[in-house]
Amino acid sequence: MKLVVVGAEGRMGRMLIRAVAEAEGCTLHGAVERAGSPALGQDAGRLAGIGDLGVSVSDDPLSLFVAADGVLDFTVPAATVAFAELAAQARIVHVVGTTGLSQDDLKRLEAASYHARLVRSGNMSLGVNLLAGLVRKVAATLGEAFDIEVLEMHHRMKVDAPSGTALLLGEAAAEGRRVSLAETRVSTRDGHTGARRPGDIGFATLRGGSVVGDHSVIFAGPSERITLSHHAEDRGIFARGAVRAAQWAFDQPPGLYGMDDVLGLRD
Amino acid sequence: MKLVVVGAEGRMGRMLIRAVAEAEGCTLHGAVERAGSPALGQDAGRLAGIGDLGVSVSDDPLSLFVAADGVLDFTVPAATVAFAELAAQARIVHVVGTTGLSQDDLKRLEAASYHARLVRSGNMSLGVNLLAGLVRKVAATLGEAFDIEVLEMHHRMKVDAPSGTALLLGEAAAEGRRVSLAETRVSTRDGHTGARRPGDIGFATLRGGSVVGDHSVIFAGPSERITLSHHAEDRGIFARGAVRAAQWAFDQPPGLYGMDDVLGLRD
Amino acid sequence: MKLVVVGAEGRMGRMLIRAVAEAEGCTLHGAVERAGSPALGQDAGRLAGIGDLGVSVSDDPLSLFVAADGVLDFTVPAATVAFAELAAQARIVHVVGTTGLSQDDLKRLEAASYHARLVRSGNMSLGVNLLAGLVRKVAATLGEAFDIEVLEMHHRMKVDAPSGTALLLGEAAAEGRRVSLAETRVSTRDGHTGARRPGDIGFATLRGGSVVGDHSVIFAGPSERITLSHHAEDRGIFARGAVRAAQWAFDQPPGLYGMDDVLGLRD
Amino acid sequence: MKLVVVGAEGRMGRMLIRAVAEAEGCTLHGAVERAGSPALGQDAGRLAGIGDLGVSVSDDPLSLFVAADGVLDFTVPAATVAFAELAAQARIVHVVGTTGLSQDDLKRLEAASYHARLVRSGNMSLGVNLLAGLVRKVAATLGEAFDIEVLEMHHRMKVDAPSGTALLLGEAAAEGRRVSLAETRVSTRDGHTGARRPGDIGFATLRGGSVVGDHSVIFAGPSERITLSHHAEDRGIFARGAVRAAQWAFDQPPGLYGMDDVLGLRD
Repeated sequence: MKLVVVGAEGRMGRMLIRAVAEAEGCTLHGAVERAGSPALGQDAGRLAGIGDLGVSVSDDPLSLFVAADGVLDFTVPAATVAFAELAAQARIVHVVGTTGLSQDDLKRLEAASYHARLVRSGNMSLGVNLLAGLVRKVAATLGEAFDIEVLEMHHRMKVDAPSGTALLLGEAAAEGRRVSLAETRVSTRDGHTGARRPGDIGFATLRGGSVVGDHSVIFAGPSERITLSHHAEDRGIFARGAVRAAQWAFDQPPGLYGMDDVLGLRD
Repeated sequence: MKLVVVGAEGRMGRMLIRAVAEAEGCTLHGAVERAGSPALGQDAGRLAGIGDLGVSVSDDPLSLFVAADGVLDFTVPAATVAFAELAAQARIVHVVGTTGLSQDDLKRLEAASYHARLVRSGNMSLGVNLLAGLVRKVAATLGEAFDIEVLEMHHRMKVDAPSGTALLLGEAAAEGRRVSLAETRVSTRDGHTGARRPGDIGFATLRGGSVVGDHSVIFAGPSERITLSHHAEDRGIFARGAVRAAQWAFDQPPGLYGMDDVLGLRD
Repeated sequence: MKLVVVGAEGRMGRMLIRAVAEAEGCTLHGAVERAGSPALGQDAGRLAGIGDLGVSVSDDPLSLFVAADGVLDFTVPAATVAFAELAAQARIVHVVGTTGLSQDDLKRLEAASYHARLVRSGNMSLGVNLLAGLVRKVAATLGEAFDIEVLEMHHRMKVDAPSGTALLLGEAAAEGRRVSLAETRVSTRDGHTGARRPGDIGFATLRGGSVVGDHSVIFAGPSERITLSHHAEDRGIFARGAVRAAQWAFDQPPGLYGMDDVLGLRD
Repeated sequence: MKLVVVGAEGRMGRMLIRAVAEAEGCTLHGAVERAGSPALGQDAGRLAGIGDLGVSVSDDPLSLFVAADGVLDFTVPAATVAFAELAAQARIVHVVGTTGLSQDDLKRLEAASYHARLVRSGNMSLGVNLLAGLVRKVAATLGEAFDIEVLEMHHRMKVDAPSGTALLLGEAAAEGRRVSLAETRVSTRDGHTGARRPGDIGFATLRGGSVVGDHSVIFAGPSERITLSHHAEDRGIFARGAVRAAQWAFDQPPGLYGMDDVLGLRD
């Protein structure tokens, strides 16, 4: 499978280049950066610290897409929407790990998915997606006698809170309970808070060091607690998950898919 | 519902008395100890530290069973087998939390369940039974790329290892993988062990202090880990679970049930 | 040692009555509630669920204090300040577990401690006080390359955040680093927070179920993390710690002491 | 500081090459493998995946040592003893992370340390050495009312149990209590174990996935628990610790040192 990595110079871009190079049956067909990037013209493999791959970084995505099978994209919303339209024209696979997409962005991705096979997820790891399914099920089984709390820890450079993955897990809990996360979410507690409101879904955020990403969902009931946790050791799991998603989507009809589909986790 | 507690003098017996006294719609109909026990003739409520309940401890289970709706039993295997026959004669509910039952004991309980409604579990808590279901599912979903480990901690007085609940969780993992726990179980590691054998299910045991019971099942894969944990704050959860099992079984036909049935956790 | 429990009807008051009754060498000399309390005249032991102790709840603290050796007090700031003056008059031991004391309250306690032997702590458990000492030491040893985060979880009824104990641990970290907690404390993170500021001490709060009190202090550095945790199983540790503090203070000169003194944890 | 890495081809050797290349004020002076190794003659930087460093792998340690300031050694006992003699001849720093050294090996290292500045530790990370100091202190403060348990988890390829670091932490606990670890160590629990023996130091081992190394020491007392944990994210912390040890030792007189000395953790 011939894959293009967009946003090749960024941390996730370089991860993706390495993951493509290591994956059986995959070759790096192209690497894209925006016009003006100092990475243009460099060898993508050297950029990723794994030696020459014979692929120069380019600022012309469309000419790469038309001869490729898929594109891996962990960039920013505006770029992702543009890439989705090009991927649709090229009728290839588009794997989207970009976060912070607006409702309007999502509509445009949906439109693109009439022609592309588009896989989108806030977290491409097998473990987190499996965990989200468990959270949904447990939240549906247990009533409000069990309070739900989502805890996450990430490295000191992370600029937003709670993490996209924590929100994904909170959404799973809310779905299980058939409530709206927006109406039940509590993300800060400081000073005189009063007692916990039944039905709330609480979030707590830790930041520090070089932590890749730890998430726990706690169901705290009368005299017992169930905790479901995920620990990521390196960002490679997200890149490898993206390659796996591309390989899965290769044989699918056009449409908008999630990691649940890729991993066969739908009930 | 009129309930009898057998083994009334023991730690779990006194817990059960308190749980029956607190449960809505339940009354303590009788409390049983073996002949010769110093508790005979004492008030069961006083024995349980909650004040007089007007029920004296007796050594005659059958005359109590015939006028009762159910019996709660966390005793020892020989006593439980005998109580099962009496409960069958009386055609009442028999909730069994006794551990260490042999294959032969289990056959005799099964025979009794043609007439009694018998609920048996190695752990009566909602949380642990829910966890076992999750473990079965995750073990079935993930392949051998994820190693399974079961960790438990209990108080310093516990005399066996791993705990019955740890084994119950290990069994759930083995069922999910469609393997035999007996053939994959590793309970000790010391000295030169060699690398972990693919497919093994490992157990690790901690003992100390007054810990009621902590259990974790860890799925450790390439660069990520999922951990499913249960923490018990007090033994009351087992007693309350037993009362809940009795209430559920009241309306059922005779048969042998598990906590999965009581809690509606069967898929 | 003859001890009086004030605030006898509250949850901690009843714990204290039980702890005094169980402690070797201690007797319950009196139990105090405010005028108008329905508990007045009741037997304190019965109130605490342990059977008659022959001590009726009274609304006259001074007449009890003058014939006692000490008073155990987990009430509210206004009451504690008043009790401190009476304990000073009676020249007895005053153990204060009350939280939320203002700077002005603290000055009045200090004044009282010229005549009373006053032991005050936001958390009377051996473990938490030991942990605070470790946190101070580790914070002093590690530089700002290790980020400090304080995590706590308590039951759903708790009305303030972070817990007094979490703040006590944060203070210990700040002391170790020779900084002001007020200037480095970050208690909420939500939305676009930007990267973590070097030197910050972060707090995260979980609420749910019946959790007695879990606290962790995390030192997250480059590629490694040290976590120091305390888990409380029941509130009895605070009551037993208060009795231990009273026993220790019995032989001391008048003054204001902390649990570090009681437990011999000063370096 | 000019440093030589021995065992250059192994996983830790390549880590050390990278750590030297990244450390300010350090240069890679040489890289050594045994005669016959396929790595001989290759560029050490390329071997370590970081591009050419202009240093070829050699099988002649002595000629490298005489012009160097120090040697970093995570090899095997026989090789380490031989390198220690060469380092003593060259009067340079010798940092030893080799495990499994016998009493006899240790004597020979001690002899070498009359001329070399030798730093040896079973774990070169700042965090683990700091933790060991805390464990020693807590074990000395708490009596036998608090049971001590050591828990560790490592990747599936690890061939021995408990880990050297778990034993290092257990030794620290035993020192704190002034007992012998050999006499108090319990490394396996399976079947009918009986109640925990007061004073025992228990070990529990988890194996799975790609876990770099997690260690916890648990102090479990009456109704409360203190847990001190270390989590390693990557093996780079050991390599960086070795470089830091070499830099520290550069200015010291000949002698045998530990990481406590390097990190200034001696009380």
